[in-house]
Amino acid sequence: MKKRRQLAREVAVIGAGMSKFGMFPDKNSKDLFVEAYNEALASVDKGMDPNDIDALYLGNFTNDFFVHQGHWGPIISDIIGLVPKPATRTEGACASSALSFREGVFAIASGFYDIVLVGGVEDMSKRTTEEVTEGLALATTPYEGNVGFTFPGVFGAIATAYFSKYGATREHLMNVTIKSHKNAPLNPKGQFRQTIREIMAARIERARERGQPVPTWQDEREFLRDDKANPTVAWPMKLYDCCPISDGAACMILAAADIARNFTDYPLYVVGIGQGSGRGLHASPDITYFEATRYAAQEAYGMSGLKPDDIQFSEVHDCFSIAEIVHMEDLGFFKPGEGYKAVEAGLTARDGSKPINTSGGLKCKGHPVGATGVGQLLEVWKQLRGEAGERQLPIRDLRIGAAHNLGGTGGTCTFTILERR
Amino acid sequence: MKKRRQLAREVAVIGAGMSKFGMFPDKNSKDLFVEAYNEALASVDKGMDPNDIDALYLGNFTNDFFVHQGHWGPIISDIIGLVPKPATRTEGACASSALSFREGVFAIASGFYDIVLVGGVEDMSKRTTEEVTEGLALATTPYEGNVGFTFPGVFGAIATAYFSKYGATREHLMNVTIKSHKNAPLNPKGQFRQTIREIMAARIERARERGQPVPTWQDEREFLRDDKANPTVAWPMKLYDCCPISDGAACMILAAADIARNFTDYPLYVVGIGQGSGRGLHASPDITYFEATRYAAQEAYGMSGLKPDDIQFSEVHDCFSIAEIVHMEDLGFFKPGEGYKAVEAGLTARDGSKPINTSGGLKCKGHPVGATGVGQLLEVWKQLRGEAGERQLPIRDLRIGAAHNLGGTGGTCTFTILERR
Repeated sequence: MKKRRQLAREVAVIGAGMSKFGMFPDKNSKDLFVEAYNEALASVDKGMDPNDIDALYLGNFTNDFFVHQGHWGPIISDIIGLVPKPATRTEGACASSALSFREGVFAIASGFYDIVLVGGVEDMSKRTTEEVTEGLALATTPYEGNVGFTFPGVFGAIATAYFSKYGATREHLMNVTIKSHKNAPLNPKGQFRQTIREIMAARIERARERGQPVPTWQDEREFLRDDKANPTVAWPMKLYDCCPISDGAACMILAAADIARNFTDYPLYVVGIGQGSGRGLHASPDITYFEATRYAAQEAYGMSGLKPDDIQFSEVHDCFSIAEIVHMEDLGFFKPGEGYKAVEAGLTARDGSKPINTSGGLKCKGHPVGATGVGQLLEVWKQLRGEAGERQLPIRDLRIGAAHNLGGTGGTCTFTILERR
Repeated sequence: MKKRRQLAREVAVIGAGMSKFGMFPDKNSKDLFVEAYNEALASVDKGMDPNDIDALYLGNFTNDFFVHQGHWGPIISDIIGLVPKPATRTEGACASSALSFREGVFAIASGFYDIVLVGGVEDMSKRTTEEVTEGLALATTPYEGNVGFTFPGVFGAIATAYFSKYGATREHLMNVTIKSHKNAPLNPKGQFRQTIREIMAARIERARERGQPVPTWQDEREFLRDDKANPTVAWPMKLYDCCPISDGAACMILAAADIARNFTDYPLYVVGIGQGSGRGLHASPDITYFEATRYAAQEAYGMSGLKPDDIQFSEVHDCFSIAEIVHMEDLGFFKPGEGYKAVEAGLTARDGSKPINTSGGLKCKGHPVGATGVGQLLEVWKQLRGEAGERQLPIRDLRIGAAHNLGGTGGTCTFTILERR
């Protein structure tokens, strides 16, 4: 990058909503998106006429092959009454809706549109775990998926390399899982809402009820070490290192900053919108970092004039526990090889100096892939507006939050910074 | 639309290229895109450093299910050496790359980027006709494809409705086919390069060689009426009303207008970028027009301040012969119900008053769906720069051309106007 990238016209978020994330056998993508959309409309403090929306950007990754239906832009624009206005689908694997957010920002910053709806949706849980695992592997490069690399294996390899380079162990990964599950009960929209201790207690209770041998775990770590309770998926990724299969939708209403206060007294301003691409593990000299995330961070920090220390909290793409650690380092929150120590020291907890994934993260909130990018930004919206309920960060003068979204094996990464003024 | 939409910063096309369109069993999407990219780079008159490209937008529709690989943005950014710069896939069925063009325009007009590569690719011909027909039906709405409506049937229904409303017949559709095939031999990149008369002569010659009964067609119309030579696909769509299954790629290099002349003395300016969405046939009170095309036209004319009569020539999405007629009307080139008469009167021929599909159209040039939108704009580029070779339009002061791209059953339509100054 040769110059500091700027937008000709500033853009703000004026509304946001999401469906519950989880497994919903009776809901399809339309049902889920309408849930998110209705909440987003209702969140516009001063109200808005849906007819003021000029266009839709929709992130989706798997509907072509999981539900045998493509071309979702106009299907969603139809169900929410936006036809004949334009509807564009973006796809960047699990970063699909971070791309829709970014295109919505460009469309407004260009001067062409004033108000744009951006979001994403995914409908995954009606497929078997095997089908989902194979389907998601379409997001890897042809040099990975075609030779049998699916995502648990990819992140298992990354964790192994990270362990080898920095001396971390599985014991350190557990800290990510335990931390995410501590935030989980506080997010009413999340897929999993129990701490690891609560899960343990429920298991013990169930064993007692059934007259089975009662587990003797003394703490979370013992539970997570237990191969029966926490089986290996792809070493060293065990079950509780992996995010679940989820259905869900999320959306945001963007407006030109110059009109944002017509709709709300509490707009959030889009101050950084970085994106990068990557070649995949086969072409990476070192798989303990993501070039695409580093580039996205550089673009976003460059645009905003902010530094990593200025980001007060962030959602970070934790499809697997190791991903959270590696990406925190790529974003500059911690030095390479220091991320796992930061988690261990509690710095990324809700009461730490750099809270990460207050939503519970993909691990607990769920990961309906096309909805995840905007879903992460929704957590930033909630926190910055002081509307995060029980999980509200106890930070005085909370002004700047960010979200990092990953697609594939680092093929697409985004970093988006929002500011409250 | 309440206001005249404008861009904060003008955008120009400074380079363009395409692969041959056709059926290439030995080429994949990467091979095809590299062909197009190399030609685009070479077309930049004053030369350019590929490192000046800030980002990629890539249209693709079917690769997820036809070649079992998704997330094509970074795969293409990798093969052309663009990593770690951002690469975003857009999907709007057969309009996927018109969307990538439009997003590239927004990204530059927003001020964020200066030079963006946009394009599309599709790799379809390795599948059977049945698989392609079923796969493309993923672009219809859930209320069409799921009840057995594939595209030949959709456009058969549209043609039947059009015939019924306006008194046109299959004889009129033939005029579209004959006209497209007249342009076909003049396009060296096209999939089919024979006139109907040449096809007839070859068939007669082959019958003679094989000692088979020699056909007695007197002219093109007799050939096209012959059920053996031109079998019915979905009445009234016969074989020669339908575009082929194709592989191919096309791309363009966009730049901020303020720097465009650093790269070429002959940039083309993007003066209109309309897009609309539609609900599908099941929800249309009248299927003889496309609401999405009308909306896209309104946006593009509104932005440019131009009227239909100002468009000197246009590529119009002719996936089926009837589509060309209906969309010409939707774009305002001819009144509703007058399009078929205009073709009959020769107005849309290369020497007519409103030349349409000088490239040979999707019918002859081919329709690698994700590449089509930018492929159409490439014809406009060639004509406006006087580089269309044998098919160069004989119009003095050729300044304004356009391209219309359709996705699905009118789910996505775009209309893009380019100007030479």
